[in-house]
Amino acid sequence: MPAVEPQRPVRIGVCGLGTVGSGTINVLARNGNEVAARCGRSVVIEQVGARRDNPDCDTSELDVTRDIFDVANNPNVDILVELIGGTTVARELVLVAIENGKHVVTANKALIAEHGNELFELAAQKGVTIAYEAAVAGGIPIIKSLREGLVGNRIEWLAGIINGTGNYILTEMREKGRSFDEALVQAQALGYAEADPTFDVEGIDAAHKLVIMASLAFTIPLAFDKVYTEGISRICPEDIRYADELGYRIKHLGIARRTEQGVELRVHPTLIPQRRLIANVNGVMNAVLVNGDAVGPTLYYGAGAGAEATASAVIADIVDVARTLDAKPDQRVPAAGVALAEQGDTLVLPEEEVVTSYYLRISAHDKPGVMSKVATICSDQGISIEALIQHEPVDGEELVPVVILTSRAREACLREAVAQIEALDTIEGKVVRIRVESLG
Amino acid sequence: MPAVEPQRPVRIGVCGLGTVGSGTINVLARNGNEVAARCGRSVVIEQVGARRDNPDCDTSELDVTRDIFDVANNPNVDILVELIGGTTVARELVLVAIENGKHVVTANKALIAEHGNELFELAAQKGVTIAYEAAVAGGIPIIKSLREGLVGNRIEWLAGIINGTGNYILTEMREKGRSFDEALVQAQALGYAEADPTFDVEGIDAAHKLVIMASLAFTIPLAFDKVYTEGISRICPEDIRYADELGYRIKHLGIARRTEQGVELRVHPTLIPQRRLIANVNGVMNAVLVNGDAVGPTLYYGAGAGAEATASAVIADIVDVARTLDAKPDQRVPAAGVALAEQGDTLVLPEEEVVTSYYLRISAHDKPGVMSKVATICSDQGISIEALIQHEPVDGEELVPVVILTSRAREACLREAVAQIEALDTIEGKVVRIRVESLG
Repeated sequence: MPAVEPQRPVRIGVCGLGTVGSGTINVLARNGNEVAARCGRSVVIEQVGARRDNPDCDTSELDVTRDIFDVANNPNVDILVELIGGTTVARELVLVAIENGKHVVTANKALIAEHGNELFELAAQKGVTIAYEAAVAGGIPIIKSLREGLVGNRIEWLAGIINGTGNYILTEMREKGRSFDEALVQAQALGYAEADPTFDVEGIDAAHKLVIMASLAFTIPLAFDKVYTEGISRICPEDIRYADELGYRIKHLGIARRTEQGVELRVHPTLIPQRRLIANVNGVMNAVLVNGDAVGPTLYYGAGAGAEATASAVIADIVDVARTLDAKPDQRVPAAGVALAEQGDTLVLPEEEVVTSYYLRISAHDKPGVMSKVATICSDQGISIEALIQHEPVDGEELVPVVILTSRAREACLREAVAQIEALDTIEGKVVRIRVESLG
Repeated sequence: MPAVEPQRPVRIGVCGLGTVGSGTINVLARNGNEVAARCGRSVVIEQVGARRDNPDCDTSELDVTRDIFDVANNPNVDILVELIGGTTVARELVLVAIENGKHVVTANKALIAEHGNELFELAAQKGVTIAYEAAVAGGIPIIKSLREGLVGNRIEWLAGIINGTGNYILTEMREKGRSFDEALVQAQALGYAEADPTFDVEGIDAAHKLVIMASLAFTIPLAFDKVYTEGISRICPEDIRYADELGYRIKHLGIARRTEQGVELRVHPTLIPQRRLIANVNGVMNAVLVNGDAVGPTLYYGAGAGAEATASAVIADIVDVARTLDAKPDQRVPAAGVALAEQGDTLVLPEEEVVTSYYLRISAHDKPGVMSKVATICSDQGISIEALIQHEPVDGEELVPVVILTSRAREACLREAVAQIEALDTIEGKVVRIRVESLG
């Protein structure tokens, strides 16, 4: 056997000592020997940059600076690990690190989704890489699976529960019959939701993650501003109950799909058949279902957040970069899955062109002929009614809740039908509409 | 941006034109452009070695030899793709290829499980790699997840449904109330089971896959001969029904777990709580649940067999090897996850020392005092009874089926208790025993 040259340690600089930063330092301390064996060299924390210490993490033996840019400019640092969050300073920090010839590992989904194209370009110029496994679905190795594990496939679509806060809220609503507001308060009390929950419950966080996965799945540039986003704050307990009766669960999904006319990129509440594995992913857990033309459906499940789950992904990236530290750039997996010149165009299908089935809930006066009018309106738009259930009126109400499952229809047609239904004088208020996906 | 040198194509030699061989050639033909973009160079099939053609696959434009050793000796071949199956000839073929400085990609679980240690050793000496993603769970990127995606973790245990035939049979038994024999005939009619189903239903195939995953998870040498293996042919429909009543599903699992005393390696039918995601993996689908100390539980689900699903994994390996074709050996992920010198000892916990809960089914004469004697026997062995259900006698039978769920107990104690119970004159026949795992 040829003598193996001992490899010099890889020196990392960790910026940010929040949840993920402290988790990363703790896991590296605990599993350092195994990690070193895995990557063939030891991993040394050369410097930590953080505005303040974190009591969850012992940095007494480490070189800590209060100026994170010290880390980006430290000539001894091989890999800058960006865990500060946000996009403005993080972008500056990463740009400086790349300019200085450092590789970057980041858990920052917003940074990659919004500035990834620019960062990947500069990294390619400088011959370094940016790794971001931790940016999507916490510890689940979904980036690696999309970028490496499934490369034999033409990926047709993917659908993910990629926001644990939203999934926790929907799970509580279903299991305990709680309202959205009650479940949100509970999520906040448990630390699963922020005081301002907009980012999570309105789907912005999920859109960040979706666009990153779509970029890798379809080898297209990141297009965060083109994602259609709809939150879960208007989901009612009765919709969850009616969906249950029909054999469905309501999940907040990020969906990306290839079509002949373009790529669909959308985040919205979705009815999915309860027999699907992903319909049974509950609480704060995440899961991504990926459908490739060769492999068929595959699913990846795990914790989407948390100090150590995210640290698991950060460390996997560190090991990947460390192993190829002395390799030529083209011997590494490209940050975007392919060389940037090989990326296709991001032609995103306009939302009006998207075709799905729909769940509609209508509040109707209990008079003859109402359903016949609704059916005619749908039919005129080329929409068939696959199921229609008239429920008992809610206590003391005169209005009858009517739930309809439609055939697959273009969004534009559905909107027109909904507008006409809402204009009927036997219908009260707005039509509740939630997309339905079979994911089969 | 520095000028990117165009990279020469990677030339592969495909040995074997069965299901996986033809699937691989077909998928490469269909997705060749995407695959080339992913690995930064085109993939050229330099030669095919197969005793006969396969009508599912067009090889008219390819150089086909009837002697697979031509491929292993072809100086133009960079990667030998071994898809012939079996262990004797496959081992010879792979040894010749490695001696000739070729990388190897294989879908052959028996070859890796039984001869992997020898092959990895020779490959390390020759500075080439052996990739075997397709050997476990078909198209699911579980090898990559264990070897790369989860490297930040100390993996505590893993449990997998890794034989689609067995899972199909158990699913049919549960969903349609069929006997094992009926479900097996059905599986054979559909081509899911071989004429001689031993390999699948007795757990040998699962043991091959388990030992490969355990080697990567715990960085230990492959130890196929140390796996405890128990098949599913003795599972009765009533056990599936009683398990259901108790909130469990019966699955044929491969389980590997670290303990202080050694590693558990076992394949056996297992009761698992039906709320676990893996309990709901049905039909021929596979899934592996992996528990890491940092990431917690993660699950990987997909098709475990089939021409194109397996081809998906074969091609992912080809791309990995192709990308690092000109890299130094230590810049590649080691075949065994770590350098062989870094592997620990494979200290396997003897079966008698394994601790799990148990499902016991006893056929008892309906006389006073029977259950009290059973409880005393269990108690004397340190085993508590967590649940006990006395069922109605089966039509026309005098015997009463009694189902017991025990506390966690050492296998040796359980064996002793079972022997004593079977010796009671109020008990008929053998005690049915199936292990229970919470997987939580």
